[in-house]
Amino acid sequence: MSEYFPEVPHIEYEGPDSDSELAFDYYDPDKQVGDKTMKEHLRFAVSFWHAFTGDGSDPFGAPTMQRPWDDIEDPMEKAEARIEANFELLDKLGVDYFCYHDRDLAPRGDTIEESNENLDEIVPLIKEKIDETGIGVLFGSAELFAEPKYAVGAASSPSADVFAHAGAQVKKALEVTNELGGEGFCLWGGREGYKTLLNTDMGLEQDNVARFLTMVADHADEIGFDGQLMLEPKPKEPMKFQYDHDSATIHAFLQKYDLDDRFTLNIETNHATLADRPFAHELRYARLNDILGSIDANQGDKLVGWDTDEFPFSLRDHTLAMYEILQNGGIAPGGINFDAKVRRESFEPVDLAHGHITGMDTYARALEAAHALKESGELEAFVDERYSSYDEGIGQKIVEGEADLADLEEYTLDNDVPHPESGREEKLNALLNRYILEA
Amino acid sequence: MSEYFPEVPHIEYEGPDSDSELAFDYYDPDKQVGDKTMKEHLRFAVSFWHAFTGDGSDPFGAPTMQRPWDDIEDPMEKAEARIEANFELLDKLGVDYFCYHDRDLAPRGDTIEESNENLDEIVPLIKEKIDETGIGVLFGSAELFAEPKYAVGAASSPSADVFAHAGAQVKKALEVTNELGGEGFCLWGGREGYKTLLNTDMGLEQDNVARFLTMVADHADEIGFDGQLMLEPKPKEPMKFQYDHDSATIHAFLQKYDLDDRFTLNIETNHATLADRPFAHELRYARLNDILGSIDANQGDKLVGWDTDEFPFSLRDHTLAMYEILQNGGIAPGGINFDAKVRRESFEPVDLAHGHITGMDTYARALEAAHALKESGELEAFVDERYSSYDEGIGQKIVEGEADLADLEEYTLDNDVPHPESGREEKLNALLNRYILEA
Amino acid sequence: MSEYFPEVPHIEYEGPDSDSELAFDYYDPDKQVGDKTMKEHLRFAVSFWHAFTGDGSDPFGAPTMQRPWDDIEDPMEKAEARIEANFELLDKLGVDYFCYHDRDLAPRGDTIEESNENLDEIVPLIKEKIDETGIGVLFGSAELFAEPKYAVGAASSPSADVFAHAGAQVKKALEVTNELGGEGFCLWGGREGYKTLLNTDMGLEQDNVARFLTMVADHADEIGFDGQLMLEPKPKEPMKFQYDHDSATIHAFLQKYDLDDRFTLNIETNHATLADRPFAHELRYARLNDILGSIDANQGDKLVGWDTDEFPFSLRDHTLAMYEILQNGGIAPGGINFDAKVRRESFEPVDLAHGHITGMDTYARALEAAHALKESGELEAFVDERYSSYDEGIGQKIVEGEADLADLEEYTLDNDVPHPESGREEKLNALLNRYILEA
Amino acid sequence: MSEYFPEVPHIEYEGPDSDSELAFDYYDPDKQVGDKTMKEHLRFAVSFWHAFTGDGSDPFGAPTMQRPWDDIEDPMEKAEARIEANFELLDKLGVDYFCYHDRDLAPRGDTIEESNENLDEIVPLIKEKIDETGIGVLFGSAELFAEPKYAVGAASSPSADVFAHAGAQVKKALEVTNELGGEGFCLWGGREGYKTLLNTDMGLEQDNVARFLTMVADHADEIGFDGQLMLEPKPKEPMKFQYDHDSATIHAFLQKYDLDDRFTLNIETNHATLADRPFAHELRYARLNDILGSIDANQGDKLVGWDTDEFPFSLRDHTLAMYEILQNGGIAPGGINFDAKVRRESFEPVDLAHGHITGMDTYARALEAAHALKESGELEAFVDERYSSYDEGIGQKIVEGEADLADLEEYTLDNDVPHPESGREEKLNALLNRYILEA
Repeated sequence: MSEYFPEVPHIEYEGPDSDSELAFDYYDPDKQVGDKTMKEHLRFAVSFWHAFTGDGSDPFGAPTMQRPWDDIEDPMEKAEARIEANFELLDKLGVDYFCYHDRDLAPRGDTIEESNENLDEIVPLIKEKIDETGIGVLFGSAELFAEPKYAVGAASSPSADVFAHAGAQVKKALEVTNELGGEGFCLWGGREGYKTLLNTDMGLEQDNVARFLTMVADHADEIGFDGQLMLEPKPKEPMKFQYDHDSATIHAFLQKYDLDDRFTLNIETNHATLADRPFAHELRYARLNDILGSIDANQGDKLVGWDTDEFPFSLRDHTLAMYEILQNGGIAPGGINFDAKVRRESFEPVDLAHGHITGMDTYARALEAAHALKESGELEAFVDERYSSYDEGIGQKIVEGEADLADLEEYTLDNDVPHPESGREEKLNALLNRYILEA
Repeated sequence: MSEYFPEVPHIEYEGPDSDSELAFDYYDPDKQVGDKTMKEHLRFAVSFWHAFTGDGSDPFGAPTMQRPWDDIEDPMEKAEARIEANFELLDKLGVDYFCYHDRDLAPRGDTIEESNENLDEIVPLIKEKIDETGIGVLFGSAELFAEPKYAVGAASSPSADVFAHAGAQVKKALEVTNELGGEGFCLWGGREGYKTLLNTDMGLEQDNVARFLTMVADHADEIGFDGQLMLEPKPKEPMKFQYDHDSATIHAFLQKYDLDDRFTLNIETNHATLADRPFAHELRYARLNDILGSIDANQGDKLVGWDTDEFPFSLRDHTLAMYEILQNGGIAPGGINFDAKVRRESFEPVDLAHGHITGMDTYARALEAAHALKESGELEAFVDERYSSYDEGIGQKIVEGEADLADLEEYTLDNDVPHPESGREEKLNALLNRYILEA
Repeated sequence: MSEYFPEVPHIEYEGPDSDSELAFDYYDPDKQVGDKTMKEHLRFAVSFWHAFTGDGSDPFGAPTMQRPWDDIEDPMEKAEARIEANFELLDKLGVDYFCYHDRDLAPRGDTIEESNENLDEIVPLIKEKIDETGIGVLFGSAELFAEPKYAVGAASSPSADVFAHAGAQVKKALEVTNELGGEGFCLWGGREGYKTLLNTDMGLEQDNVARFLTMVADHADEIGFDGQLMLEPKPKEPMKFQYDHDSATIHAFLQKYDLDDRFTLNIETNHATLADRPFAHELRYARLNDILGSIDANQGDKLVGWDTDEFPFSLRDHTLAMYEILQNGGIAPGGINFDAKVRRESFEPVDLAHGHITGMDTYARALEAAHALKESGELEAFVDERYSSYDEGIGQKIVEGEADLADLEEYTLDNDVPHPESGREEKLNALLNRYILEA
Repeated sequence: MSEYFPEVPHIEYEGPDSDSELAFDYYDPDKQVGDKTMKEHLRFAVSFWHAFTGDGSDPFGAPTMQRPWDDIEDPMEKAEARIEANFELLDKLGVDYFCYHDRDLAPRGDTIEESNENLDEIVPLIKEKIDETGIGVLFGSAELFAEPKYAVGAASSPSADVFAHAGAQVKKALEVTNELGGEGFCLWGGREGYKTLLNTDMGLEQDNVARFLTMVADHADEIGFDGQLMLEPKPKEPMKFQYDHDSATIHAFLQKYDLDDRFTLNIETNHATLADRPFAHELRYARLNDILGSIDANQGDKLVGWDTDEFPFSLRDHTLAMYEILQNGGIAPGGINFDAKVRRESFEPVDLAHGHITGMDTYARALEAAHALKESGELEAFVDERYSSYDEGIGQKIVEGEADLADLEEYTLDNDVPHPESGREEKLNALLNRYILEA
């Protein structure tokens, strides 16, 4: 086998002192961290789209990626080769999950009928590989953004025919994901949004998106799909305004349309930063509102304007993220899906291994740091103490809903406001660094 | 009288050909625009804080503003002078409303008791002026951010004593506003948010904010205050993350805590742009969700990082805003409050007149352009046509909730997706310019 | 003829009251504005790349543009059709110039030899059309960014072979532009920059860019090309850092390598805003340093992260730009080149006409407003008065270089600093609006 | 002694395992790193303004800082207390340098004469402390931005009187710094820039700044000041556009006015990021152009709009910075000056110690990582190999200036462009993490 990545061995943990370029410095899958192994905590997934169909093009340049399967002319054979390559790469990386859009797996046909037939042809092969390897689907999705018909949205399209087409496509994608035993299905609103309000009926579009999602949830029930249904926040680009702007925006939408029990969120690191929010904020918001579903792991660059989708390497940001995940009791049935692409000039197949190793090592180290931080209780104790005035007296009355403004006034007239306490942000920043470095 | 702005005459409409520096080019208060006069449409207000207590300081510099009342030493006398100056300026500008924080009106005392006494001393004077002039209060507010005790929030403070103090303060401010016949009360979450998640219990803080707002709404009912209660979106600064990030974030919050019937939004232009949203987006979002309350009118500058609060001069942005307001059936009982400050180097009293003239003329012209655009029906017709596929056939079934995914699939298998139509954004941009220029 | 844009008539000035969708509201080519006609002032050009080879794809989507020539299979025939379409569109718009990259005109071959042969085949056709129509080349350029070999730069490539290839390509493109009578040649550093400092020898790269430009200038002299040679500022994307970041950065570079007499700048509106500078700032900087060459006209959107290249519609920004150009004594031998693309969903050929009409009308109105503002002398008088203390006394000594710090100290000890004067920014903003609206 | 920071002991290196809150985890001053000790490499300085005169106010809030010297009423006594506190804090932190503005050291008088007298009174005390402790001045500066007269600039003021006043002030500040043995003098252009082009004569302003700097350099020569003269890049705020935007902008300015041999740069971390450049970019640009003078160490937050000036804690950014400094052969006679402030809610005196500890530990760890990276030669070898085609053949001819475009064309026609090599960015990101974690 091993024909697509001959230069990539099985990647093993060798630790930071190893000279090997293709080994993990920090990710040691079976290492126990608290009550689970690293692998159980992190539930890594490879994104099929970036790894196997991404070509390295950008708005100023042609494809650069060197991918052996691109030499194959027949589309279905090429699709099969990508499947083989997927299972090979996951096996070599020791990754248990992958994620896909329908059109990543099998070529788009001229009609939806043809596209469905292509899927039907490839799905048995995937199923066989899944059975053979134990590798599974973290989540599936439908690609509702690339085709010209989706230029101004799918479920939020001004055209009912496009809406219908999107529905037909999601129906099939959901059924395929069900068949493949997927643990989730993500409705990423690729172009659900608007370019200019001048030509947009935003009210109708939002209502229609809600109608669409309701149909999807109903169909999931009907076919017995018991994975989680997810939406993914993204603030801008490709549309000027994307309706699923951030966690809170989706939360408002879900509540308005009574969908909050049927959908969770797939939170992408760089979509958070594009919305000027820390990744950890988005995770905490979702956690506090019981809608944290899964993670699209990558990293952006605020010094650049566009969505860079780099493989994660920020130790700090990901330690803060893992801290939220540990507080959440883990990320299952979601996982950490590398929605990340190698740079356009990192075009060799082996760079795919480097990218994932970098991301996995970063998360592994972050897990250890976050775990140590949580175990130590240092932060928690600081926070508990800081808010302790709500544990008794007027604070307790406030929290228990037994105070009104008149009570507060009376209390305030009788009591001086005690001097507040320092927030100690500088000290806490150093503390976090220490956990990162010493984990 | 006229002692504070002797260089400012009564500002009249003279049109763009006039040579007068202190006259309106476009704002003609009694001019009929559709079914209302300009004045009735626009319901302008002056912000007491920027006009009468703002001093021109910035993080790198000392106060610059030359304000005659600053020569008065006694704090209560200075406060009275500001009140006089307020009514003088409004009279000269022909503005009918003003907005304030409690601490703008009367000096902060050493205790809340003392602060309340100061308010009690000044309120009769204000009431007298109101009765005398017919000028009224668009909305009042409580200043819950400047004092060190509020450094990390008021209702979201880690300290129950600070929470209580904020409650006591709002109680009084609300009562004062009730007494002054205010048409609204705004709870601007000045520092409700966090600086770092490392020391923050976000769940408790959000719950507490909801508790606080519930108490406020209850107290409003109790004292018979029938103005609107408002929250104001702001994304960041002074806290790294402000909980009232944007319209959608507040909408999520209000729904979660069952407060959506009790609060509307006071939307500030530059807070929208700080959140990377067009002002018109925020207005439309609020309008579609029945929470559009009032407007804090100003303008930011995306080429600068901080919140510049300039007097509005963008013809385009404000035409789009007025278009939303006209679609909303007007902004009453809210209004257009100039939450804007003259530049630090525009320090003469007469610059206050220039600033408001610039803002009022900008909104006046925007109103005329938006009205003409609405009357023409050009945009509306374009949009209706664009979405017309939802008026019959599969589109109608979708909208009426009678289609499921299987119906959509069946329809799609039977029908080609017709070619979509051009969004014509370039043409619409030219059309908007034509309405702005020719209104 | 008229086969590529049958739906587009000859666009004429009809004024804002006309009902015609395809007519100018403000651009009246022969209208006299000061000492020149509108056409002579504005020297409009169409960008061949956006109009004829741009396909509407973006990082999330496939091509959408409907272009009749795309039905032609043979690459050279398609290239010829584009040339025909170019001259047809320019004729219909009444535009006198176009701009191109070498690879826009003729298809890229498998080798540079083949690419050159393709150019040699197409150039006579273009020349013939130029002779026939009087339409000319504002500037040519070489496309040094799309091919994978240029993934990390051309003149700043880590590979000497790529540097050499770029040199060979520019040699030919410059010769072609010379043959076509081009008034300029622009070296847009498409990917001259770096992605990460970790793998970059910035010193060598910058030296190499200077070496490259020196060779180009020498070759221009050798072949007798007497058009202007230009560099174009751009801050970021596609590289994380582009070496030609803004006007000042290029100015530093040109001075360091003694190239400031050989190159001017082609300033793009949206590249200025991507660098957080007003367009007018970049123009003024270039004007003050005698390096203002030409303009790439478009418009960005600071609420979106990426480079949107919209057709210009901001009346204010372009009035400020035209004011700089008038102060510069005009833009010739440069011009106003629409480096702008219709939105991805404005895919019909007629949208190309709408886009250019919008841009031309915007610039026409901006020209009239700027001209009126300049003629009135209102701004100039304000500024002269504001700086008048440098016309005599200590100010004059400072300006004439006759004062040292001791003189300043002596003067300061003897004189109070007189009260500064208000900058009147608010009033000036209103004044500018009045000129825009009433021009 | 020890009266201002009784809760702060002498801070010692105890390593990360220590339980002590007030100890260094990584900064071990006498530890040898290559050929120098940590202390010699890092040359830390405390900023007098943030530590001793900063009050914790922000645009929305009053002062919060609890500083014992603020209880002293007499301004000169308070100034003396601050000096005492400065030497106490530096002694406890083991920091050898401090930096100041003239007005930090002694109170501003009503006239410049009075201000000078105040300085003359305090300088002997400082000198005595310097002699006593061996602590020295890294650089001095003049505070040319806070006073209303400087609202629109000092050397770039529209008023010649303000220019003269600024000159008088700098003269004295430079003399004081000379007397105190300062190793540098920084002319931070606090408000040198503009708010709006509408009222600005940018050409005159820039010429005047050059005249001003020439006078300063001449005066430095005259009084025998042999420290370095520095300018500090900053892109925006408080002015919309600051003339000293970034390293390249200043480089252009210095070359234009023949000042490049007389000034170097004091590069501030967060000013770099405000200009959308990595800190390491600014350092490398300055290093390559021989104008790297010193560092203002802090950290910004791109998720927030304004200049946050946090104490540095980013391990990655500062490792990259230290790598540049090591490549530069060190930072002397400059140093690493903490131009950073504790958060507004970190108001206790002990937070000043925490802030500096965090910053010093971050830089110490960064130094060790950068040193190990440099010693290993891993990056250097990668880069050398990547550019090796310039060492021979056509590459060598290019570099030696012996090739023209015809040579490049000939070479290209004869040679295929060899396949480029992967940039390996992902691998290098992991490599950098490994050096950070294992240093």
